[in-house]
Amino acid sequence: MTTTTYRMDQMTWPEFAARTDRPVILPIGSTEQHSQHLPMGVDARIAEHISEDLAAALDGTVMPTLCYGYKSKPLSGGGPLFPGTIDLNGVTVINLVHDVLSEIIADGFTKIVVMNGHFENEPFVIEAIDLVTRETGGKATIVESNWWDPLTPDVVEKVFEGLDFPGWALEHAAITETSLMLHYEPQLVHMDRMVYKQKVEPKAYVRYPVRKGDVPDYGGLADATGSSAERGRLIAEGCVSEMVKICAEEFGTER
Amino acid sequence: MTTTTYRMDQMTWPEFAARTDRPVILPIGSTEQHSQHLPMGVDARIAEHISEDLAAALDGTVMPTLCYGYKSKPLSGGGPLFPGTIDLNGVTVINLVHDVLSEIIADGFTKIVVMNGHFENEPFVIEAIDLVTRETGGKATIVESNWWDPLTPDVVEKVFEGLDFPGWALEHAAITETSLMLHYEPQLVHMDRMVYKQKVEPKAYVRYPVRKGDVPDYGGLADATGSSAERGRLIAEGCVSEMVKICAEEFGTER
Amino acid sequence: MTTTTYRMDQMTWPEFAARTDRPVILPIGSTEQHSQHLPMGVDARIAEHISEDLAAALDGTVMPTLCYGYKSKPLSGGGPLFPGTIDLNGVTVINLVHDVLSEIIADGFTKIVVMNGHFENEPFVIEAIDLVTRETGGKATIVESNWWDPLTPDVVEKVFEGLDFPGWALEHAAITETSLMLHYEPQLVHMDRMVYKQKVEPKAYVRYPVRKGDVPDYGGLADATGSSAERGRLIAEGCVSEMVKICAEEFGTER
Amino acid sequence: MTTTTYRMDQMTWPEFAARTDRPVILPIGSTEQHSQHLPMGVDARIAEHISEDLAAALDGTVMPTLCYGYKSKPLSGGGPLFPGTIDLNGVTVINLVHDVLSEIIADGFTKIVVMNGHFENEPFVIEAIDLVTRETGGKATIVESNWWDPLTPDVVEKVFEGLDFPGWALEHAAITETSLMLHYEPQLVHMDRMVYKQKVEPKAYVRYPVRKGDVPDYGGLADATGSSAERGRLIAEGCVSEMVKICAEEFGTER
Amino acid sequence: MTTTTYRMDQMTWPEFAARTDRPVILPIGSTEQHSQHLPMGVDARIAEHISEDLAAALDGTVMPTLCYGYKSKPLSGGGPLFPGTIDLNGVTVINLVHDVLSEIIADGFTKIVVMNGHFENEPFVIEAIDLVTRETGGKATIVESNWWDPLTPDVVEKVFEGLDFPGWALEHAAITETSLMLHYEPQLVHMDRMVYKQKVEPKAYVRYPVRKGDVPDYGGLADATGSSAERGRLIAEGCVSEMVKICAEEFGTER
Amino acid sequence: MTTTTYRMDQMTWPEFAARTDRPVILPIGSTEQHSQHLPMGVDARIAEHISEDLAAALDGTVMPTLCYGYKSKPLSGGGPLFPGTIDLNGVTVINLVHDVLSEIIADGFTKIVVMNGHFENEPFVIEAIDLVTRETGGKATIVESNWWDPLTPDVVEKVFEGLDFPGWALEHAAITETSLMLHYEPQLVHMDRMVYKQKVEPKAYVRYPVRKGDVPDYGGLADATGSSAERGRLIAEGCVSEMVKICAEEFGTER
Repeated sequence: MTTTTYRMDQMTWPEFAARTDRPVILPIGSTEQHSQHLPMGVDARIAEHISEDLAAALDGTVMPTLCYGYKSKPLSGGGPLFPGTIDLNGVTVINLVHDVLSEIIADGFTKIVVMNGHFENEPFVIEAIDLVTRETGGKATIVESNWWDPLTPDVVEKVFEGLDFPGWALEHAAITETSLMLHYEPQLVHMDRMVYKQKVEPKAYVRYPVRKGDVPDYGGLADATGSSAERGRLIAEGCVSEMVKICAEEFGTER
Repeated sequence: MTTTTYRMDQMTWPEFAARTDRPVILPIGSTEQHSQHLPMGVDARIAEHISEDLAAALDGTVMPTLCYGYKSKPLSGGGPLFPGTIDLNGVTVINLVHDVLSEIIADGFTKIVVMNGHFENEPFVIEAIDLVTRETGGKATIVESNWWDPLTPDVVEKVFEGLDFPGWALEHAAITETSLMLHYEPQLVHMDRMVYKQKVEPKAYVRYPVRKGDVPDYGGLADATGSSAERGRLIAEGCVSEMVKICAEEFGTER
Repeated sequence: MTTTTYRMDQMTWPEFAARTDRPVILPIGSTEQHSQHLPMGVDARIAEHISEDLAAALDGTVMPTLCYGYKSKPLSGGGPLFPGTIDLNGVTVINLVHDVLSEIIADGFTKIVVMNGHFENEPFVIEAIDLVTRETGGKATIVESNWWDPLTPDVVEKVFEGLDFPGWALEHAAITETSLMLHYEPQLVHMDRMVYKQKVEPKAYVRYPVRKGDVPDYGGLADATGSSAERGRLIAEGCVSEMVKICAEEFGTER
Repeated sequence: MTTTTYRMDQMTWPEFAARTDRPVILPIGSTEQHSQHLPMGVDARIAEHISEDLAAALDGTVMPTLCYGYKSKPLSGGGPLFPGTIDLNGVTVINLVHDVLSEIIADGFTKIVVMNGHFENEPFVIEAIDLVTRETGGKATIVESNWWDPLTPDVVEKVFEGLDFPGWALEHAAITETSLMLHYEPQLVHMDRMVYKQKVEPKAYVRYPVRKGDVPDYGGLADATGSSAERGRLIAEGCVSEMVKICAEEFGTER
Repeated sequence: MTTTTYRMDQMTWPEFAARTDRPVILPIGSTEQHSQHLPMGVDARIAEHISEDLAAALDGTVMPTLCYGYKSKPLSGGGPLFPGTIDLNGVTVINLVHDVLSEIIADGFTKIVVMNGHFENEPFVIEAIDLVTRETGGKATIVESNWWDPLTPDVVEKVFEGLDFPGWALEHAAITETSLMLHYEPQLVHMDRMVYKQKVEPKAYVRYPVRKGDVPDYGGLADATGSSAERGRLIAEGCVSEMVKICAEEFGTER
Repeated sequence: MTTTTYRMDQMTWPEFAARTDRPVILPIGSTEQHSQHLPMGVDARIAEHISEDLAAALDGTVMPTLCYGYKSKPLSGGGPLFPGTIDLNGVTVINLVHDVLSEIIADGFTKIVVMNGHFENEPFVIEAIDLVTRETGGKATIVESNWWDPLTPDVVEKVFEGLDFPGWALEHAAITETSLMLHYEPQLVHMDRMVYKQKVEPKAYVRYPVRKGDVPDYGGLADATGSSAERGRLIAEGCVSEMVKICAEEFGTER
């Protein structure tokens, strides 16, 4: 049995219907510029891969990935002025996640994970979760997280061994995402095209309109030098093993 | 160079930015029960595959697929009461397609195809196209179609050679979808699990609430017996070659 | 007692309140160009007349007609660029039908027919019906149809005796609508102004923006020559008699 | 030439297109209980009749009537708890009027009257007018009124000669509406069923939920005794002649 | 204990939680031009002061004031073309009031007063109240009023003793608001800057777009000459004493 | 001249209109439980006070405070299950901020600060800013910040001298908010009622439904012991002096 077994889009409905007591995982990413060396699908691809690993660990089911997300911001994604960044409005993200969760709850699932790969999605995803929870009287337990928050300090330390950690907000197309892509889909990473000129200084405020120059013109916020598949593996495994514990606690699941 | 070259999610932003004068294709499908022998991702997978073939033919770019669609109806998809059918509200589909198209037009693309794999999506996708067209003063030409309408009568005849054509509305998990999946992803088709008891009689009206029994309990609307990869190839090639002509006429594209 | 007895707008509230166990019919049409020889109210007028005939046959009640509908499309109505076509947004149609149905259900009616006279309305009307059905737990049975789908093949054959049937999509301001208007309101039909130059070729796709020339400049999609009150009568009676059977089956009504 | 000439729904599109420099009038009413002696279509019927008279006076065009309106309130319509009162949500009224006005302005009309027959509609209709005006840069002049506000004091005095005027808020199914219906459609008025027990005392506040007893159980707010077709004629003519002056001032129209 | 005790924003949550059986009052005003002599916060300030007086009389709780309101109209506020008038869209007002009321009802409060200080707010506030009432099955009693409607005729007579009453619609920045501000916050009233040139003639219709000149360029609709703190006190006390009676009747409250 | 001079609600419209070239500041807070010793208005009161100090420093204008905000979350405010926490829906916050900003830009202001006092508001406020910026073509420069992000590391160090800094997320009703309230409105702080039992452990995920126990039953997330007016003054002055620099850079303002 391969990992694809856990994908809802590859199951027939009776196969899916037999799994309502198992966790179901909804990956959400974005389509967003990721500097010169990473493809635009990074957030969605990573969310999907982590979800599949988590499904394998939990005997869960992965729903089809939401490949578009909330607007990329200068301080955490840098995308608004780069071609290829597709920014959904907040209301659209709320409604989309709302409808998908409503339907899966109506199908009888009560153990739901939303696995987010795009920082800016979070408040709108949580708003959707809150609305669905109110409407359904809380009959499903919904856990929302991502691949960075569950990492324990010692995993973060190992991941950045020999490197500087610039803070999560700047980890866009930098060490963690590049390493995860080297781990999962190395053929899509172009280390030879990597550009790094300066670290973006995080600001204490936002200012609109966004202007050319708010983000370096190549599209990166921090240095990706030193990324490796091994570091990517550490993140993936570190995240999944913590998420398994979280699910055990919240859902009472075990393997 | 492989077909994956045409996928936006696998491009860096500069690669994408260099292609604004080429067509861009947005596949939209659904996640919906497809009887006993087909997986739930059929509509999205077919829309994506056809889009990739079309992109290869046109030197176009395929955007990430919208994997969830409008509500499955008894007479054309049969899904509302089957687990795994994820029905988005009409407003959600409109907003989602609206935002994606707005962003791609803001990026400078003017030759856009929306390739639909789920019958019920169409009016809501077109509403989104109409709204975006009004807001942007019509600066992009947007073509919306699917894999069935462009087929010429002689292709349809060849596809159904030796078989009965039950009408497009009932072609859900039947000859055409099964054949397309045998052509594109045979490992996901379970011909041994195929069930067929009776042809659903299309009704001259809709009635709500939908009730168990409106659709046979296995989930099919018509017989898939006789499906083959060869018939699938005929459909795929028949659709793509017509779409190339349509794009030539509407966009002035050629290869 | 005349047919007007069945009109809700002509009843006092106690008369109406006494009829909650009878079917109630909501006609919906549009205001849309209908070529040179038919007035713009055709879709609404026909929906209303058919509804009144059906009410007479069922001892039902006809609600006031929704005279504006969803956007007229080039391939099925041809209206977007002609003065006088009033196109409601999809969300507006959904909300309007939703609110009217909600209220009539709150009044205790459980046998509801929505009679549509404008092809493009259907998906948005059905979305409204679906939403209301979910909100009210399905306590009313709602049937949605129009005057063309219920016609039996032999009625269609008789209606088009000696004529070509161009397909329903092109039946805009053509044989069926002209004949129905000659049957119901001949004083509004100007046969002497009828224009026909070419049959519109139905396309396998939609393209936006709509352009002058997508529809012949007089506004017709197919030929109306040969229309007659008698053909109109056949359609009206053919539709009503089928609708009576449908209501009998769905509502358990009889006369 | 009869008054029906002024109805948009009875015109062909070329007839309508020839009138873009003339005023266009949109009647809006409601479907609402009107006590024991008046039918539920009163607000819509009166708005439509006044609009037709005004169109005749101005050589204007009457659009199809919006027959459903905003929620009936205890102090001005008394409808929420009576069967047959169909209450649209505020957002629905705003969107509906917005879309209709947007389309008529897009058709080139710049002299627009909204003629309201249902007190509660007004703020939501005006919100729609404000939104459309902002969106279109104010290129159309839109006048909104009703059949009561334009009446001069001496007309009001004549209308109520020998009677008490209870204030406009209570004029629901009372002297003015009954008289107007006797003037325009006497066959729909049942003077023999008229009930009057007590005058409703207008309150200085609203209280929700509305309760049985907030309005007398027969549905009236004030006494209709003394209503006559002649009083109705005075109102209709008094309103139309003032509206003609208003249009002359705002549109520069004359006859 | 001072009047500030009644302010929710000055209470801790346990203090507030102990008062669920007492009335809770939500003041709503606007930010709107008030001619030359009054500040823009008048509507909000007066609503808040009256609410505090009412809370003191009822042992109720005053929620934080909604300081922005629905669009100022020429005939009742004169604001749309004056800097500083902040006009919320109708939908925004409905949603804002809806959410605040929903939350307070979820907290267990069942005796709610909405105290309005801005004429134009009323229909949108009431729409919100209606929606919340439907959603919560009417478990809270919600009274909506303002500071002018509850005044008895003899109070109005005393307030305008020696002056002309121009009608409530024109009472914008005129006798009543100026007097109330002289009563509550005299330091914010600049009697020396008062301008009065002509009484605005109320029109029998509205016309859009609003034009410079629809309202006198200084911003007033009627004369404020003769305003006094004493007249303000009469209004405040007259309103509060009536509101106490209304609450006694609707809530069964007493002191 | 007192600080009240900078409040828009205390200005007449001509005073306000004379200041369009100066910065305008919109404070937004919330109404939310703040443990046992702080009142529920803390977020709004602090946002307002900081805004007034900033206005004084910049010769700016403070708009009326938005006193209700987005939903309080367990990990950053702890409010959803405590009486008195008033949670607006995301869409409501977006629309409210959108409308207020639209209007102030329409009035000619181009230097706008949104000063936020409630952590959870931020993404929804920024969504509103983004929408307004798109609609107005970016003609105003809008800076959004709060009172914590602009603090320099050495100010934070001084503020927490002798204390542990638990991280900003837990700084709810703890050292910083308590100190700011002791600085601005000591009469509203009840140090004697302060409760602290355990530090809440920030979680790496969110889980819905929120449950009693997710937050300690008294309502605090971290210890407030050691709070002082002096620490509050350091925060206020530290924030304002940085904001002055930010405004100088973004607006070109100086004093």
